[in-house]
Amino acid sequence: MTDAASLIADLGRRARDAAAGLARMSTSARAAGLRAAAATLRDDEAAILAANAQDMSTAEARGLTVAMLDRLRLDAGRVAAIAAGVEAVATLPDPVGQVIDRTTRPNGLDLCRVRVPIGVIGIVYESRPNVTADAAALCVMAGNAAILRGGSEATHSNAAIHAAMLRGFVDANLPADAVQLVPIADRAAVGAMLGADGSIDLIIPRGGKSLVARVQAEARVPVLAHLDGINHVYVDGSAEPGMARRIVLDAKLRRTGVCGAMETLLIDRAFPDAGGLIAALRDAGCVVRGDGRAQALVPGLPAASAEDWDTEYLDAIVSVAIVDGIAAAMAHIAAHGSHHTDAIVAEDEGVAERFLAGVDSAIVLWNASTQFADGGEFGLGAEIGIATGRLHARGPVALEGLTTYKWIGRGTGQVRG
Amino acid sequence: MTDAASLIADLGRRARDAAAGLARMSTSARAAGLRAAAATLRDDEAAILAANAQDMSTAEARGLTVAMLDRLRLDAGRVAAIAAGVEAVATLPDPVGQVIDRTTRPNGLDLCRVRVPIGVIGIVYESRPNVTADAAALCVMAGNAAILRGGSEATHSNAAIHAAMLRGFVDANLPADAVQLVPIADRAAVGAMLGADGSIDLIIPRGGKSLVARVQAEARVPVLAHLDGINHVYVDGSAEPGMARRIVLDAKLRRTGVCGAMETLLIDRAFPDAGGLIAALRDAGCVVRGDGRAQALVPGLPAASAEDWDTEYLDAIVSVAIVDGIAAAMAHIAAHGSHHTDAIVAEDEGVAERFLAGVDSAIVLWNASTQFADGGEFGLGAEIGIATGRLHARGPVALEGLTTYKWIGRGTGQVRG
Repeated sequence: MTDAASLIADLGRRARDAAAGLARMSTSARAAGLRAAAATLRDDEAAILAANAQDMSTAEARGLTVAMLDRLRLDAGRVAAIAAGVEAVATLPDPVGQVIDRTTRPNGLDLCRVRVPIGVIGIVYESRPNVTADAAALCVMAGNAAILRGGSEATHSNAAIHAAMLRGFVDANLPADAVQLVPIADRAAVGAMLGADGSIDLIIPRGGKSLVARVQAEARVPVLAHLDGINHVYVDGSAEPGMARRIVLDAKLRRTGVCGAMETLLIDRAFPDAGGLIAALRDAGCVVRGDGRAQALVPGLPAASAEDWDTEYLDAIVSVAIVDGIAAAMAHIAAHGSHHTDAIVAEDEGVAERFLAGVDSAIVLWNASTQFADGGEFGLGAEIGIATGRLHARGPVALEGLTTYKWIGRGTGQVRG
Repeated sequence: MTDAASLIADLGRRARDAAAGLARMSTSARAAGLRAAAATLRDDEAAILAANAQDMSTAEARGLTVAMLDRLRLDAGRVAAIAAGVEAVATLPDPVGQVIDRTTRPNGLDLCRVRVPIGVIGIVYESRPNVTADAAALCVMAGNAAILRGGSEATHSNAAIHAAMLRGFVDANLPADAVQLVPIADRAAVGAMLGADGSIDLIIPRGGKSLVARVQAEARVPVLAHLDGINHVYVDGSAEPGMARRIVLDAKLRRTGVCGAMETLLIDRAFPDAGGLIAALRDAGCVVRGDGRAQALVPGLPAASAEDWDTEYLDAIVSVAIVDGIAAAMAHIAAHGSHHTDAIVAEDEGVAERFLAGVDSAIVLWNASTQFADGGEFGLGAEIGIATGRLHARGPVALEGLTTYKWIGRGTGQVRG
């Protein structure tokens, strides 16, 4: 066994014990642990900001981009938001112990499925230090132990946040190994985590496409992954033009860097205001690229290349195609979508229901912006990520997605005979 | 791309189209397809038995074991049972379209989670030809397309069963590619299936431990796997001795080769009839191996080795340990169990509930035999397998485990703003 593998195996054993302890604790005991951790996060504001300043100066010296520096930066407001986020998780309905279904078999065996924690969850993430607190809070509230591996640029910030939370956990009698941080110095640790089937039950990567792709390619542990959000809005011929414009502008431009942003706009040739929609996007500062039919409508519109239809811009750029109704729109989405979030704007309910049933995405929306793809907006309180896979949990994943179930049968001496 | 990879990619494309067609069909249309396939299976009885005779004579010439020959053998009764099994799946409640939960957000967005098929499911299995029909029926009833890869020794039997079912499917207007058989000649095909992320959504291995272990080790596609069933019965001091004896004998000996069979018996030192339990097992023809305390109770009892506690015998052999109450029993199960099925026999409800909550297995039972670990016994109608992993589905997996869900949001023009 390599050093990294034995390190992870050791963390895994500690995590397994901690998970057993957490699973035995009541909802209120776990919630009290999170509230205590929020308090110690606030107490440690100065230490956390000092650690972050150290990370920031290294990052600046290394020439990280402005966007990366912004993701890394903490200030008093952000620390307060992190603490408030941990407290908010403590107020969420606890899925652990929920009875999913219950039946009495003809032989009298009383059988039910009950939600239980998954066990040990590994989180591999990049520069945002708030993930340390968010992921720890969600895992622990769902009764799981967490093994966290953050980005090297956030080493000191993550360690300070972890130390603060751990003090709160221990104050509230949560197991000290409920959340462990993988020492960053060991570069082989991520590989060891991905291979740690048996010690880690689930890996959740949070970060850019290359991180997620590496995790998916290498992992022998099950992965709950978020890949691309190549999201479409289809504006049907029956759409109300004012609503279409509001939804399209919001879906593309409210925030362009989020995974729920629209990347491709499909307009029914029967929609009377395609030109107005494209003009509104351009007026709002969006670069619009069109297929031949869109170019014919709007003189001077640049052409979308074949690649454009498969691109997640995460920027103020959109590709527009004029399509022959809903069947063509659905065929385009099936060919180019990433099964994340797709929306239809339509007044015709029959068309809308056909879209909702037929588009194979984690989230399908009718007359609403794709930017609602978010755990908070879905009433889940918080999310550990948006899953674009098909197994276990799909779309925004929060506490329930961090649980599994067991079958419990209560008998009176039944044998199969 | 290798030949095997391009073969699987082609099957995957056909399966994806077929899955889209199946997902659009109503419950009754899919059920009609299964009933038609049952009818064509009956029509083809002679052809299926002739194909099976060919496989049997090859298998005999190759010197397969008696157990393997029995798994491979078909007769009129088994063909009738296969057809009846397919019909039975057609009568099961359809999970597709079920609304899991529904809520109206404060902004008026109506949000629900609806069960949908997973998509394309790959099944890799060994000698039993009935798996061809069972797996095909379950996948198709849940709206999925299936790609089946059976064992080489059952080539002709599987092809005949597949051909019969396909004729029924096509008669009933199901897509012709709803169920595809991978040509057996290509030995690299299994590897290609395991690597086919994107074309296959889920792989289910059905067979012995070495097949399942290979699939788990190599697969880049998510796997729903069944590994060991190292199942325990713990007889508490409070157990009613007659019930304990009935349950222990049934759990070990009703059928010794099933995954739900008990492999280790843990007896509380406070239980007054440990000697009687062990004698009953031996009288019934079971080899009993004991720890030191069991050996002290029953003179001449052979010793269980360290390995015994981690062994799935699938035979009339059991290891017995005398333990100091429920805490020691739970510690033993945590150290040696395989998270499949574990049972407690006890009259003390507090002790029983502690066991049910604390033992981390897919199935935990109180005063019932471990041999109830079966989809039929759980009221699921049929099962594609018993999952020993922790994600997606756990324990017996039937139609619901072959579905996932999507989020559907119905709005009136909501934007996030």
